[in-house]
Formats: sequence, structure tokens, C-alpha cells
Amino acid sequence: MTLILGIDPGSRITGYGIVRDTGRGGCIYVASGCIRTGAGELHERLQIVYRGVREIIQTYGPVTMGIEKVFMAKNADSALKLGQARGAAIVAGAEESLEIAEYTATQVKQAVVGTGAANKEQVQMMVMHMLKLTSKPQIDASDALAIAICHAHTRSSLLPHGLGTARSRGGRLRL
Amino acid sequence: MTLILGIDPGSRITGYGIVRDTGRGGCIYVASGCIRTGAGELHERLQIVYRGVREIIQTYGPVTMGIEKVFMAKNADSALKLGQARGAAIVAGAEESLEIAEYTATQVKQAVVGTGAANKEQVQMMVMHMLKLTSKPQIDASDALAIAICHAHTRSSLLPHGLGTARSRGGRLRL
Repeated sequence: MTLILGIDPGSRITGYGIVRDTGRGGCIYVASGCIRTGAGELHERLQIVYRGVREIIQTYGPVTMGIEKVFMAKNADSALKLGQARGAAIVAGAEESLEIAEYTATQVKQAVVGTGAANKEQVQMMVMHMLKLTSKPQIDASDALAIAICHAHTRSSLLPHGLGTARSRGGRLRL
Repeated sequence: MTLILGIDPGSRITGYGIVRDTGRGGCIYVASGCIRTGAGELHERLQIVYRGVREIIQTYGPVTMGIEKVFMAKNADSALKLGQARGAAIVAGAEESLEIAEYTATQVKQAVVGTGAANKEQVQMMVMHMLKLTSKPQIDASDALAIAICHAHTRSSLLPHGLGTARSRGGRLRL
């Protein structure tokens, strides 16, 4: 029952979500939240992301991490800012010796909602449903949980047959 | 005689340069080189930048770091990649408790050549001249040395007269 970390990096808010992969195609909610970088200098904000991600890993002990892969940013300036936060988060995972996988937004939506064309609200609703959440998580935390679910699903489907995957039971993910 | 680190981050090569600020408007060459990230996965490449920068800081003991500020990247994709490397380098400096300052390419050229319109070769020639180098450094190392020189000049002009260039930060004090 592997613990899986999902990270949705951002220059102001980095969402995180942790799920436990049951190994039977399902995920159980463990934790989620946001790292807010505040209004300090750039290096202070990046250090908050870096230390925040390391602290989460040290607290919960996930062994693997999924992070959203960005294909198109609005413009070069926002891409640079996002890249910096992403770099800080990825280095934190690497320094904690986690496996790290990247997923596009389309892959995440496909894994959670079943279609890459889903909108943010649909993703959030499905995350709540799949993890049996009674209240709506903050949107960045919800996105991070979606990434964690996508990562759990992808890892399961890559595991050798018989090691506990949803695919052998004909299910994509238990709903 | 403060040691100053200059970093020119890049997704494939990160240049570094260390100079000693004489406190009399001059700089003495200490070291320079390149961190090459190779062809591994993204998190491995970012970890190489992060660990490389930390190792350089631990080896030479600079107290302050200048890094190039990017205004315009070619496109969003290259901005994202540059941002990730930049984030890894900045977090490394922050984790080593260095002061960190950002300079635009124009500020660096102005400080080294005297005009913000200088080209890369002019910057390289002036770096060689100012630091009395007998051989031409690799271009990324040369750019990093130019950033270090720019940072030295800017710091000197900001420090109160008579206080020299030593500043304490996070319990560290080097002269």
C-alpha cells in the first residue's frame, strides 16, 4: 500500500496531495494542502517551496511523486516563474530520494475523469468522489490529489501482472 | 575581501565564477567553471545543478551570490526549462545561507564593459582583462564571472563608506 505524493507547483501556491495506493486500483486519501510562498524575495519563496515539499515527504513518507508537466504556459514570464517553483519542488523530491514522474494535464484528467477534455470543476468533483471526501479541497490541493491518483493508476498499470493492478480486473480505477 | 559567487543558470550548462572583492573597486579571480547536467531525467539534471552549486559554495565559501535575471526568454518552453535550472540554483544558494541578488543582462554588461549594449565577446574580453586571465574561459563560466564582478561593484557602491565589504548573514562572517 504505497504512499504517493502529487505536486501541483505554482509561483505563489504549490498544492500537495498524498494518497495511499491500495494496490487494487483504488486510492485512499491521506493528506492534502497548500504551500503558500508569501511576498518575500524570490529566493525566500523558492526556499519555502523546497523546504515545504521536503517537510511533507519527511512527515508522511511517500516513496514516489507525480508532478504536473507543463506544455503551454501563458507567456515566457509566467513560464519562467512556474519553472522556478517546479525546479525547487523537483529538487526537494530528488533530495528525498523519491521516484519522480511527470504527467501532462491531459493525462491527469484522463486518469481521473476519463476524458482529457474535463474542466477543473469536474476534476475536483471526481477527486472528492474517488477519495470519499466530505468537503471540497482547495483547488490547488485538489489538483495535486488528482496528480497523485493519476500517478497511482499509471504505476499500477506498469507493474507486472499479478502484483495487484486494476487492469487485471477490468477496472481502470475503483469509483 | 569578500568572496562573491556568480551563477549563469542554464538547462544544460550552468556557469559559475568566484571572485574576491578587494574592497577597492577591484576583483581577483578565484575560480570558474561549468556544471554540465548531462542527459539524465529532469529531476537528475536539476539535482546536479542543486548539488553542484552547493558543493561550490562549500568548497570556496562565498558569502553572497549574484544570478542573472531573465527578462525575455525565446519562448515559453525554454523559459520553463531555464526557470527550473534557475530555481534549483537559487534554492542551493538559499540553503547555504547566501545573500542572493539578481541582475539583468544589461546591468551585467554595464558593470563590466560600461555599456548595456555590449556583445558576449566584449564581455568575455573585459572579464579576461579585469581578472588578468591568460586564457579565455568557457563562455558560461565567463558570463558567471561577469555576474560576480557586477555583484561586487553593486555591493561596494551600496555599502556605507568605511565599513568595508564584510557583512554578517546567518551567523557567517568572512573577510
